[in-house]
Amino acid sequence: MKPVVEALLAALGPELVLAGEAVPERNRADWSGLPPTRPLAVVRPRATEEVATALRICHAHGQAVVPQGGLTGLCGGARAGAGEVALSLERMAGIEAIDPATATMTVMAGTPLERVQAAAEAAGFFCPLDLGARGSCAIGGNIATNAGGNRVIRYGMTREMVLGLEVVLADGTVVTSLNRLIKNNAGYDLKHLFIGSEGTLGVVTRAVLRLQPRPRCVHAALCALASFAAVLGLLQGARARLGPMLSAFEVMWGDYYRFVTGRMPHVRAPLDRDHALYVLVEAQGTDEAADGQRFEAWLEAMLEEGLLADAALARSLGDVKAFWSLRDAAGEFRQVLGPHFSFDVGLPTGAMGDYVAACRERLLTELPGITALFYGHIGDGNLHIVAAVAGADPQPKEAIERAVYEPVAARGGTVSAEHGIGTTKKRWLPYARSPEELALMRTLKAALDPKGILNPGKVL
Amino acid sequence: MKPVVEALLAALGPELVLAGEAVPERNRADWSGLPPTRPLAVVRPRATEEVATALRICHAHGQAVVPQGGLTGLCGGARAGAGEVALSLERMAGIEAIDPATATMTVMAGTPLERVQAAAEAAGFFCPLDLGARGSCAIGGNIATNAGGNRVIRYGMTREMVLGLEVVLADGTVVTSLNRLIKNNAGYDLKHLFIGSEGTLGVVTRAVLRLQPRPRCVHAALCALASFAAVLGLLQGARARLGPMLSAFEVMWGDYYRFVTGRMPHVRAPLDRDHALYVLVEAQGTDEAADGQRFEAWLEAMLEEGLLADAALARSLGDVKAFWSLRDAAGEFRQVLGPHFSFDVGLPTGAMGDYVAACRERLLTELPGITALFYGHIGDGNLHIVAAVAGADPQPKEAIERAVYEPVAARGGTVSAEHGIGTTKKRWLPYARSPEELALMRTLKAALDPKGILNPGKVL
Repeated sequence: MKPVVEALLAALGPELVLAGEAVPERNRADWSGLPPTRPLAVVRPRATEEVATALRICHAHGQAVVPQGGLTGLCGGARAGAGEVALSLERMAGIEAIDPATATMTVMAGTPLERVQAAAEAAGFFCPLDLGARGSCAIGGNIATNAGGNRVIRYGMTREMVLGLEVVLADGTVVTSLNRLIKNNAGYDLKHLFIGSEGTLGVVTRAVLRLQPRPRCVHAALCALASFAAVLGLLQGARARLGPMLSAFEVMWGDYYRFVTGRMPHVRAPLDRDHALYVLVEAQGTDEAADGQRFEAWLEAMLEEGLLADAALARSLGDVKAFWSLRDAAGEFRQVLGPHFSFDVGLPTGAMGDYVAACRERLLTELPGITALFYGHIGDGNLHIVAAVAGADPQPKEAIERAVYEPVAARGGTVSAEHGIGTTKKRWLPYARSPEELALMRTLKAALDPKGILNPGKVL
Repeated sequence: MKPVVEALLAALGPELVLAGEAVPERNRADWSGLPPTRPLAVVRPRATEEVATALRICHAHGQAVVPQGGLTGLCGGARAGAGEVALSLERMAGIEAIDPATATMTVMAGTPLERVQAAAEAAGFFCPLDLGARGSCAIGGNIATNAGGNRVIRYGMTREMVLGLEVVLADGTVVTSLNRLIKNNAGYDLKHLFIGSEGTLGVVTRAVLRLQPRPRCVHAALCALASFAAVLGLLQGARARLGPMLSAFEVMWGDYYRFVTGRMPHVRAPLDRDHALYVLVEAQGTDEAADGQRFEAWLEAMLEEGLLADAALARSLGDVKAFWSLRDAAGEFRQVLGPHFSFDVGLPTGAMGDYVAACRERLLTELPGITALFYGHIGDGNLHIVAAVAGADPQPKEAIERAVYEPVAARGGTVSAEHGIGTTKKRWLPYARSPEELALMRTLKAALDPKGILNPGKVL
């Protein structure tokens, strides 16, 4: 047994430290599709002080440590290699406090997002962060990756929901910065260093989240449009006339719509399947009757302005759910499509129509037999692409990635809008960041983790 | 002449470098009330490359540099001492681009906020950042201090409006990170390091700002209340029923209201002057008739729930302006009150009523003859206090500061919610930050500015 594992066992005991064969299956793989690994050991602390102890020992031994949450990451950021220690926060789960006057929740990092949402709801509030992995992903992982999701257009990314953080640094120093104030300009706002840095600068152990008032009603429509220019017009109209009620604006290109309504028997098609584009618009309101009326009037105005080829208005929460099932079907692509690549590029909204045309053309020309589906959170400038060549084994990874990322770089976009970099997108990071930006990231990494033990080889 | 000034003159010329007696009055003082200084020289670059040249030279000479914007800071953060070089961004003013599709503006750091607001307006958008110094303050300074202002409750601080930044590091390296995307998780989000760090980590030269849809109407009411508990009830009611329309919730304690309506002839009192508390509530809407109706219905509901002692509804934009003049009167305290101290503490909203009672009691008991006025952005947990002892010269600074900050620290508050630390609040920073937080700030400072030339002695 390696001395570092012996030291961890001596300090934390065999209940918290599992080594070798004893490493559970759950800690060997994530949702990236990369092959499973077996880390040297898994440490499963129950409290911040135990995280600090583990890091102090690993730091002293120069031992690489990989923080793990719900292991739902798509880019390999929480994947622990054979010689690495996985530091799993799974036992640090629970809501510590909800303060109704400041509308905040203090929560431990290992808490599943769904539990956070339910606790907010039970206290009369709303946790706007929501993504497909809600039942499995941990709030600490959401913070470490600055998760996005469906309602960014109204509420922002995870970053916007975090008021305070407790973080353990590489050497075991605990920095407790559990601020509950919306405004606090007393010195550097340290939390932003750790949010979205994928566990490479520190390990998030607790957080203070900002809660929102619970919406009192929800309105939705599914729209069919003939061109991307019309989509931009619809977005502009939604922003101007629905104002801050607008809570989602999800675009699906025709090929996506036809795929999910054709290949997934439980997904029904509320509109004809031959349109160029579809948009799911959602608004959250505070007054069922008045806001419903306003939403309907807006939709009529958009029809009158000639922006819509067709539209279906949700008449019930069942309809809202059915519209969302079109979009949520993306979560089941693995079953239907088999092994595939999924991308989360970002582009200036105005460049997106042109990008999709160029990227699709290139994929279809260079890779005959490819299925490529386009959809995304267009209001946020975030486009998802799913691509696979039927029957190819292995899949032509390099060619697909080039066809996706090169036109992104040419349009000033980003290689990751929400999933992060992990290991799978490291190679493409220079497409989105300049040498000076990368050098500054390395300066920060060296300052906070001079021995390079925290999630080495991830992001940078 | 010092060699560093000679080197600056040689590289940038006498048009851009003013030394000794030639240092203009404007670069010798800020709005902090601290005595004027005369910096060694002032450098006034016209472009990023000239900022880089100045910093490269100062870095080579180990010369302290103080970035200056509109010089409206209240904490001395832009005050350049006798041996320091002031780096004034005043000539780097102008809007570089507005992109309607992404709703973004690219702007140079020295641009006055008012010009940013006007350009957004002219393009059909809204720049939500607004503060009293709008005509003089520069957007780069707003960013460097993470300015707050009146509409944080809806739109957030300056930080939330910044999508991209260009920064020059201490050694002259230009880091251009002019991201226009709302979502970008490609590596560390570097801009947050510089926002709110008061020019101690880098010099902001350009920024990409996120614009908002222009509100189509505004509704406001002035409310009188008998207790802080009623204020909390009103805030809860506004959040739940006005939802995201709520754009300001400004509380004035009775002593403040009586002072401004009694001592400032142009400020009229729309409600009786004997109430305990007053709240100015503002909502921005998208539909004049429907939103006006909703606002009025909300106000009636609050009256029926017994939360209000009295209320006045704005019937015109003139009324809205008159209500705001009560709040904006704070900008003229210097003329009416003479030399005084002004604070911008932050507290959990629920603790604020109790804090004000405790702080006022202590000030009145310990400092007979003191005038102490309380008001603030309560929805954001930000309280302003203005205090002066009539006729005292010098003012009892230490005693007033202790009476304000000690009860803040006891309630988990912050010594600066929006103005920053500069030099005037440095002493009190440990009241709001732990030794571990301060150590981490120092680690960052050492990593980014190892020679300590950027705004030395500020914040840390």
